[in-house]
Amino acid sequence: MSKSIPRDGADDYSPEIIEKRQRFIEETTGATLDHTKQFSFDAQEMAGNIENMFGVVQVPIGVAGPLLVNGEHAQGEFYVPMATVEGTMLASYNRGMKVIREAGGVMTTVVGQAMQRAPCFVFRNSRDARDFEQWLVENFPKIKEVAESTTSVGKLDEIEHYCAHNFVYTRFDYSTGDAAGQNMTSRATFVACEWIRENYPALKNYLLSGNFDTEKRTSSVNLLKNRGKRVTAEITIPREVLERNLRITPEAMHYGQGITTIASFLTNSSNNAAHPANGLAALYLATGQDIANIGESNQCTTYNRVTREGDYHFSITLPCVIVASYGGGTNLPTQRECLKMMDCHGQGKALKLAEIAAALVVAGELSLGAATRVDKKTRQNEWVDAHERLGRNR
Amino acid sequence: MSKSIPRDGADDYSPEIIEKRQRFIEETTGATLDHTKQFSFDAQEMAGNIENMFGVVQVPIGVAGPLLVNGEHAQGEFYVPMATVEGTMLASYNRGMKVIREAGGVMTTVVGQAMQRAPCFVFRNSRDARDFEQWLVENFPKIKEVAESTTSVGKLDEIEHYCAHNFVYTRFDYSTGDAAGQNMTSRATFVACEWIRENYPALKNYLLSGNFDTEKRTSSVNLLKNRGKRVTAEITIPREVLERNLRITPEAMHYGQGITTIASFLTNSSNNAAHPANGLAALYLATGQDIANIGESNQCTTYNRVTREGDYHFSITLPCVIVASYGGGTNLPTQRECLKMMDCHGQGKALKLAEIAAALVVAGELSLGAATRVDKKTRQNEWVDAHERLGRNR
Amino acid sequence: MSKSIPRDGADDYSPEIIEKRQRFIEETTGATLDHTKQFSFDAQEMAGNIENMFGVVQVPIGVAGPLLVNGEHAQGEFYVPMATVEGTMLASYNRGMKVIREAGGVMTTVVGQAMQRAPCFVFRNSRDARDFEQWLVENFPKIKEVAESTTSVGKLDEIEHYCAHNFVYTRFDYSTGDAAGQNMTSRATFVACEWIRENYPALKNYLLSGNFDTEKRTSSVNLLKNRGKRVTAEITIPREVLERNLRITPEAMHYGQGITTIASFLTNSSNNAAHPANGLAALYLATGQDIANIGESNQCTTYNRVTREGDYHFSITLPCVIVASYGGGTNLPTQRECLKMMDCHGQGKALKLAEIAAALVVAGELSLGAATRVDKKTRQNEWVDAHERLGRNR
Amino acid sequence: MSKSIPRDGADDYSPEIIEKRQRFIEETTGATLDHTKQFSFDAQEMAGNIENMFGVVQVPIGVAGPLLVNGEHAQGEFYVPMATVEGTMLASYNRGMKVIREAGGVMTTVVGQAMQRAPCFVFRNSRDARDFEQWLVENFPKIKEVAESTTSVGKLDEIEHYCAHNFVYTRFDYSTGDAAGQNMTSRATFVACEWIRENYPALKNYLLSGNFDTEKRTSSVNLLKNRGKRVTAEITIPREVLERNLRITPEAMHYGQGITTIASFLTNSSNNAAHPANGLAALYLATGQDIANIGESNQCTTYNRVTREGDYHFSITLPCVIVASYGGGTNLPTQRECLKMMDCHGQGKALKLAEIAAALVVAGELSLGAATRVDKKTRQNEWVDAHERLGRNR
Repeated sequence: MSKSIPRDGADDYSPEIIEKRQRFIEETTGATLDHTKQFSFDAQEMAGNIENMFGVVQVPIGVAGPLLVNGEHAQGEFYVPMATVEGTMLASYNRGMKVIREAGGVMTTVVGQAMQRAPCFVFRNSRDARDFEQWLVENFPKIKEVAESTTSVGKLDEIEHYCAHNFVYTRFDYSTGDAAGQNMTSRATFVACEWIRENYPALKNYLLSGNFDTEKRTSSVNLLKNRGKRVTAEITIPREVLERNLRITPEAMHYGQGITTIASFLTNSSNNAAHPANGLAALYLATGQDIANIGESNQCTTYNRVTREGDYHFSITLPCVIVASYGGGTNLPTQRECLKMMDCHGQGKALKLAEIAAALVVAGELSLGAATRVDKKTRQNEWVDAHERLGRNR
Repeated sequence: MSKSIPRDGADDYSPEIIEKRQRFIEETTGATLDHTKQFSFDAQEMAGNIENMFGVVQVPIGVAGPLLVNGEHAQGEFYVPMATVEGTMLASYNRGMKVIREAGGVMTTVVGQAMQRAPCFVFRNSRDARDFEQWLVENFPKIKEVAESTTSVGKLDEIEHYCAHNFVYTRFDYSTGDAAGQNMTSRATFVACEWIRENYPALKNYLLSGNFDTEKRTSSVNLLKNRGKRVTAEITIPREVLERNLRITPEAMHYGQGITTIASFLTNSSNNAAHPANGLAALYLATGQDIANIGESNQCTTYNRVTREGDYHFSITLPCVIVASYGGGTNLPTQRECLKMMDCHGQGKALKLAEIAAALVVAGELSLGAATRVDKKTRQNEWVDAHERLGRNR
Repeated sequence: MSKSIPRDGADDYSPEIIEKRQRFIEETTGATLDHTKQFSFDAQEMAGNIENMFGVVQVPIGVAGPLLVNGEHAQGEFYVPMATVEGTMLASYNRGMKVIREAGGVMTTVVGQAMQRAPCFVFRNSRDARDFEQWLVENFPKIKEVAESTTSVGKLDEIEHYCAHNFVYTRFDYSTGDAAGQNMTSRATFVACEWIRENYPALKNYLLSGNFDTEKRTSSVNLLKNRGKRVTAEITIPREVLERNLRITPEAMHYGQGITTIASFLTNSSNNAAHPANGLAALYLATGQDIANIGESNQCTTYNRVTREGDYHFSITLPCVIVASYGGGTNLPTQRECLKMMDCHGQGKALKLAEIAAALVVAGELSLGAATRVDKKTRQNEWVDAHERLGRNR
Repeated sequence: MSKSIPRDGADDYSPEIIEKRQRFIEETTGATLDHTKQFSFDAQEMAGNIENMFGVVQVPIGVAGPLLVNGEHAQGEFYVPMATVEGTMLASYNRGMKVIREAGGVMTTVVGQAMQRAPCFVFRNSRDARDFEQWLVENFPKIKEVAESTTSVGKLDEIEHYCAHNFVYTRFDYSTGDAAGQNMTSRATFVACEWIRENYPALKNYLLSGNFDTEKRTSSVNLLKNRGKRVTAEITIPREVLERNLRITPEAMHYGQGITTIASFLTNSSNNAAHPANGLAALYLATGQDIANIGESNQCTTYNRVTREGDYHFSITLPCVIVASYGGGTNLPTQRECLKMMDCHGQGKALKLAEIAAALVVAGELSLGAATRVDKKTRQNEWVDAHERLGRNR
């Protein structure tokens, strides 16, 4: 007979209930929670971020940098907190940042932004569905008004609509200020849907989420139409800087990228990059972002070429950078401190953080892109060697 | 002029250097690190997991369960630690676990496993590349011997090979015991590649990673050929149990899944599920897994039907569950404790943890699958309501 | 030393030059062209459809039907010409048409249409690219005017724009009346691009086709945003009709479709249907469409369910039906006759033909969907049997 | 009330029944069939290729070439018959062939081949499914024997197996000699499945086709594991040859391909090429191949680079070239003549034809790849101009 986890309906974050849960776990599972129990803050602060709390996971954070960013929102050098348990990774990003500094910095641009909720509207047949699309276009101003009435921050910028079978799949695209916005868009869209239901009798039914938001997974629709911030980071690295730091020529980098891009196409991969998920996960974790979003944020394209002058140009477009500087986990004690390291905490900082995130990814791409090569003379491979030196290889 | 992050070549995890870095960050960035500084262990334990360490991020952990698993490796009830900053999420998984218990548990099966390193071999032309494929097949026993000579645990089970242009893209598929194994496969594959280079003169060159491993991203090749553990979890829920707990009929669940599966196909999504990344990320984080792997682990397919008896059958196949019970971050203090809560720490527990992970995902799918529906009578939506009650909605 | 194919600059379709080419081929290759030489029309009519003409391929055409269509443009029974060399195929479609007739016909709806040309605009960096997107939106009316000045038929309905790296990939979406329109869109878009170049100095360069049209190949962007006509065909088949004609229950059909849809998702297929390319290719070939478009037209989704009443509902959405009733190959002698069989020749008939095409596909899906099942009692399989009876099996 | 199409059960290809059908069509639809009626052969020859035959479609064929191929099976110059209704297309391919000749020819290599039938085996649960996979591997020799007992030509080379949910999706991979082989593989696989059913009691059920063959559609599994012949064609074009013939530098070609490859990745296209479907469709049609296979044959990857010497290297890998020199439509009168033009008719010629097909595609890629560029000085675009000159542009 299973035992119920202790809960306290009135106040589930009090020291008493937390201790009760800890004891329950220790008794029931036999584990001791010596470390997990130890946190430096008042558990009440966690209300809204977790249920059934009994402790914390402590993940080590290192600092990389400085990362030189020439953005519109992020300008200058940043010391970037990266939380990870994967040895070598931070060192690799750090190496990339040195190259970036010597090349004069990464240019970053937020080229679009949207946070979705994606209801699916169901009709008797395809003809009704198609006619609804037309109505949706015509009534956009009113729907926008209804949706925005529920939020002081969110703006409904567009309703994408895709008709298939007797369904109209939509994406309600919002701008959400400095919050990630998944929740505010839920409420706003629900209210809009109810208004639509009342005003469009031919509607048979709707699902509040019809999977076209493609939340926490990669998709072609996100690649084309954004989710979160769409950010491009680009850099031209003088030949000499590349060769001296990474011991590889622009031509060899370009050649390798040609091969890996074909591989990404052949395998239908969610990106043609080296490892964007690594840097993003470490930054998301340190700064209180929802790390499940790595499921979608890793999606991207890279582009590179040797310039006419013989230098190496590299750029990356990340269509799904989902970062907040406000709300969610951004105000948790350690996370807030990490955000402040980059002056990215609070209102008006989300785009800045998005630019830093994209620049960070470039650092990792440059470093790993060069590391998988085997040295012709020494027959050494930096990647394997670094993991042996810094990691937990066996 | 940028300032260098303090480092100590001799011992970079001593209290002195860590404090020096903390002071450096506080002085340079203006942030205070009151909480980030506080950790309950000796920093020396972090060597091999992070570089430039200066503190920890504390992420709250809650407990969900018990989760009733009928696996081959995981059998019985498990209290699952979930670390997250996203309110409501744990509660939703917890709700699904209740349904699972009442239905008699989730059956889990590990149907395959492989960890890859994926060198790309370059030839003069396609004809040479094709001939190499033949040689690779014939010389597999020898290559296996060479690769396995570098590791006491890893076994080279297969070399997949795909010929395109003048390249042979390979995937060296290993079983890696209870470690995730990305590093041991790097070393083993590098040594094997060097042996190949010495013994196959027509080889012009190779890249140690040609992107066919598709590490930390989703891909069709992973969906077909696994990465990490391929696990299926399946359950049949009596109609009465479903309706009473989730207020939805088997037919309505099936109908909704039909609509969202078409959406996933239309959008070329990495899964046709609701939110596998959420549960996996929370479990990975709590147990010291590499959270960047969410980039690939979210990939899956779900299948469901109404049985002849009118009950609801649901199953999920996750081809890329990447979990370790040994090595990597599994021995960090809080993470080890969380693993021990499920008796999943140390040798011989990786498959057990993989089964729990898959069962966990089922809990989340059932709960959210039902929650996006709008109640016909009350016009309430559970999903929105729950986030308003438990989350940080505005 | 290679010999040049005879050509006549002044008139390359005269009987003399055609005969000269025939002789050249016979002498050079040793083939005799007894049949290929025989055509029933004046070769001059082929100017604009082929170069270096020397004869015809004769492909047998059969007739299937009648196909009962309840469309907005196609209404009533149609005898459908199908040109193919694959035995059994027409018979299978014919069988499906019987089911359709007994079920009261297929409902068809054109839910969208667009023919693209897709220039890629190149900028110095991503920031310039993003700013151009804004300008493009603001100047759409003028660009539309310029583009439409080149054609009496084509209308520029939308310019989709996708910013990645320092590129703005666009899709100029036209409606093209009754012509397929690939050529008229080229001219119109080229003129528009030149106007843009003259009026937007920050533009560095452009490619007239940047591959975002995804012509003659499948793609997610086509699946989402159409190419040619987007048509849905849907039907509800009474249980009794299905069982009597196809010896399968609605439940068994639905069960099979569930399995094959998962397969299509797992394999990243361009459709989750049975064989839409077959019917479309046969119709395209008979009616003078460009058969290379099968490369994109096969893309689609199917949806099916068992209705509350126990009947079988099936629908298909084909986003890339590319058919013309005017221009291109539609006026060739045999092709024109085939179009006239369905009253689909000339102005104002393209949407009608698109609806017939979609209905035709439904016939094939129903028939083959049922045929791959093995009879439980006789252990016979209709599909294999039919090919043995009607095809060239060995 | 619909009228039945006349049929003659005893002999459905006699002049009488064909005339009867022609009259029926003319009377029922009002169309006249003056041209469609005219064919140069005995209709009896069409038995096995079509049902309900009433005439032929005549499609004009032109000749392009010579195409210089340096293959293993195709060696020397070939005059290629191309059947199409799309003006300009043949001329464009012809232009590419000139470049190829001046560059010394295209090297072609068949790197793999397989024709599939793809049964799906259904089990009680995932555990049974997984165990069956093991049994399948162990019993491969016996299954091979059973399958091959039904055909004198087909060889069962491999059974791929992919376990998802309670299903084992398989691909029975055959080599099929000089026939396309879709039918022989159906029969062989059916017999093998029945043998499996009799010998594996835990099998609940199977579908003869579970959609993993992905016939007549593109898919990732085909891209990875072939369908039909997998052929690579590659060429290095001296800078001077490229510039003189196509008025473009190697660098500009490479630059353009970089942009279009990113576009193909962003759009999830079935190829990153320019228009492989065009050449393949024209060749397939002329030579009696099943043109519905364009649905899968268009899938491919291209790769290109500027060599160290400054020349232009281009290659293409087509994983799904489905061509026969024997059986199917290859013996129809005009089709046979076209095959003979290239000495590709009858036994032992299928690989030769596959190599010619791949080389043909290269010609089209080179020509169109250069044509979409706009001339910097004249502001002319070859592509638009050519269509205006040769096509039916309006």
